[in-house]
Amino acid sequence: MTAPNKIAHIGIAVKSLEDSLPFYTEHLGLKLLGTEVVPSEQVKVAFLEIGESRIELLEPLTSESAIAKFIEKRGEGIHHIALDVEDVQARLDRLKENGVPLIHEQPKEGAHNALIAFLHPKAAHGVLYELCQYPQKEEPHLD
Amino acid sequence: MTAPNKIAHIGIAVKSLEDSLPFYTEHLGLKLLGTEVVPSEQVKVAFLEIGESRIELLEPLTSESAIAKFIEKRGEGIHHIALDVEDVQARLDRLKENGVPLIHEQPKEGAHNALIAFLHPKAAHGVLYELCQYPQKEEPHLD
Repeated sequence: MTAPNKIAHIGIAVKSLEDSLPFYTEHLGLKLLGTEVVPSEQVKVAFLEIGESRIELLEPLTSESAIAKFIEKRGEGIHHIALDVEDVQARLDRLKENGVPLIHEQPKEGAHNALIAFLHPKAAHGVLYELCQYPQKEEPHLD
Repeated sequence: MTAPNKIAHIGIAVKSLEDSLPFYTEHLGLKLLGTEVVPSEQVKVAFLEIGESRIELLEPLTSESAIAKFIEKRGEGIHHIALDVEDVQARLDRLKENGVPLIHEQPKEGAHNALIAFLHPKAAHGVLYELCQYPQKEEPHLD
């Protein structure tokens, strides 16, 4: 299995984007790329650029959101690590064959038209990993 | 304040490198760059390459290690996010001026001859951030 390309993003659960963003933009000096409501996850997301990766702050919009439940149980903090891969379905098939516990056996559509799937945190000793396959490479093509 | 260059690494607390590494190397396909004992932190660290960043697995060597105490309190999981910066002391001075709570007001020497300092997790709504300044850029110079 080839290595994932990079860290796509680190997802961080926060109670309020408004309260959390100034640390990232003013104190760390990160660029805010935008915000987006993801109705399927009942969250509002702020995207911050950091090198080839992003930090994604996740604010729950309802108490039913998985992020609301995470904050209620664990407090605000790092929720998941997303890895940029080129072959999400093949990876899920291979992981399943090897007995790695998965949350999604097939990818679903996420933000930015990515195909995404979460592994079960039991797979990685308590860390929640997401695999993200983006529809095209960001690098320009010469042909 | 200019933006940090990139995510230097994500630090993950694990009970055992031996038990945790196969997920990263065999199932994710990441390259193990090496392992290192850091006596000052009472940990053994495994470095895995992921794009321009690293995943660092931290195994406590004694029950007095901060990583042992983290695992005892929270379980295994993501411990901190380290950002690659070029001006750690200037950043710490500026953060202190702006009232951002710090663990270290002056950097100390970390692995790979980096200057490192931790911000207090209260600064970032529960996320522990580390600033890392490396002695030289990895990019080759033309002069």
